[in-house]
Amino acid sequence: MLFFTQCFGAVLDLIHFRFQHYQAKRVFSSAGQLVCVVTPTQNSKNASNRCAVPEDSAPQIRHHHCHEAVHDPQLTSCSCPLYACKWEGHLEVVVAHLTQTHTINILHGTEIVFLATDMHLPAPVDWIIAHSCLGHHFLLVLRKQEKYQGYPQFFATMMLIGTPAQAENFNYKLELNRNRRRLTWESSPRSVLDCVDSIITDGDCLVLNASVAQLFADNGSLAIGIAITASKLCATQPEM
Amino acid sequence: MLFFTQCFGAVLDLIHFRFQHYQAKRVFSSAGQLVCVVTPTQNSKNASNRCAVPEDSAPQIRHHHCHEAVHDPQLTSCSCPLYACKWEGHLEVVVAHLTQTHTINILHGTEIVFLATDMHLPAPVDWIIAHSCLGHHFLLVLRKQEKYQGYPQFFATMMLIGTPAQAENFNYKLELNRNRRRLTWESSPRSVLDCVDSIITDGDCLVLNASVAQLFADNGSLAIGIAITASKLCATQPEM
Repeated sequence: MLFFTQCFGAVLDLIHFRFQHYQAKRVFSSAGQLVCVVTPTQNSKNASNRCAVPEDSAPQIRHHHCHEAVHDPQLTSCSCPLYACKWEGHLEVVVAHLTQTHTINILHGTEIVFLATDMHLPAPVDWIIAHSCLGHHFLLVLRKQEKYQGYPQFFATMMLIGTPAQAENFNYKLELNRNRRRLTWESSPRSVLDCVDSIITDGDCLVLNASVAQLFADNGSLAIGIAITASKLCATQPEM
Repeated sequence: MLFFTQCFGAVLDLIHFRFQHYQAKRVFSSAGQLVCVVTPTQNSKNASNRCAVPEDSAPQIRHHHCHEAVHDPQLTSCSCPLYACKWEGHLEVVVAHLTQTHTINILHGTEIVFLATDMHLPAPVDWIIAHSCLGHHFLLVLRKQEKYQGYPQFFATMMLIGTPAQAENFNYKLELNRNRRRLTWESSPRSVLDCVDSIITDGDCLVLNASVAQLFADNGSLAIGIAITASKLCATQPEM
């Protein structure tokens, strides 16, 4: 009996995620992009991320502790970006640590749709994916946080698993699009050596208050279109 | 002696505004747009707005009190959007009221650069311009407000001097652009019949916290590129 109950639960779960995937496809139908459904890390014991493309699943990482960046390119010491992981090591082995110790799979492609579910969950909570493109690995971190009690905000930033100097070689774009409203943030990624908290304090990320997030959310999920390019391509674009 | 001191002050003021105009021109040099330097309404007794194009000067308006929108197209009653003005009248005569009673001049053109000065001033404070294009009059309202004490934010929205149904025929775009970072908000304008406070509460505007505003500010001024288009033109653009 327990077995059948579990099977039924799994089928319901699958239908739920197929529905969310359909929603994201509908929102971003013209782009033909990969859609990755990302559940918050708060629920990591109960659910894992489901991606639209079976061979690529999204990791769940939680930024928690990080130290001041030291900009020595080869031997820079780095904290694990995963929540509650005390690991520290060289920058070059962060990806190996993430994939081997935390069994994180990596998405491929320069353009994906990040569909964060359960936006209503209380802060603090993170939605995170990693993906590989243009010869590097990147992390997208969406954090819900109350910098002022009772006033939750969402902060989305792209981080390069590399040095700040390497990060300057890339640009990224985050786009929210719903009901004839569009909000776009374009910037260079930050280095994973930088702390997420300091990026948020600097305001160097896409910031949404709860009302704006609600305006773009669909049935409790927020779809963020992501595109990463090499800086030289972006440098040729006009400023306005 | 007093006369010479005043003359010297006026010359310094002129140099200051020419420098701000130069800065805005530098930021948006590729666009070839009109640049309008907008001082906050808090300083309205000491300074007026200076525009880059002499025949067009920017008005200083302050939204303070407005009531719930009644969507009767011809006979809708409307409050004056100016701070501390108790005037109420029909929608059709708001422009006449603004120009005749408050001597507000109106900018012309679908693309301008709004250069808000003195971003450091304590909240609440408004920066506002009016302009005419595509057969209608629009107001751009930038408000600095502390929804939570000690946590000032900036809210920018475009309002049509017309009904909500008329507002749906247009789209507008606000763009901040500095140091390889770009933040863009695209939407339909709201009707001047809607209250600025309710627009802010809905999150239906470009929202910047103090850190993000600081990131895009240059020497205490924030340049916002504005473009207004008819909806049909925008409807042909791809969603992503």
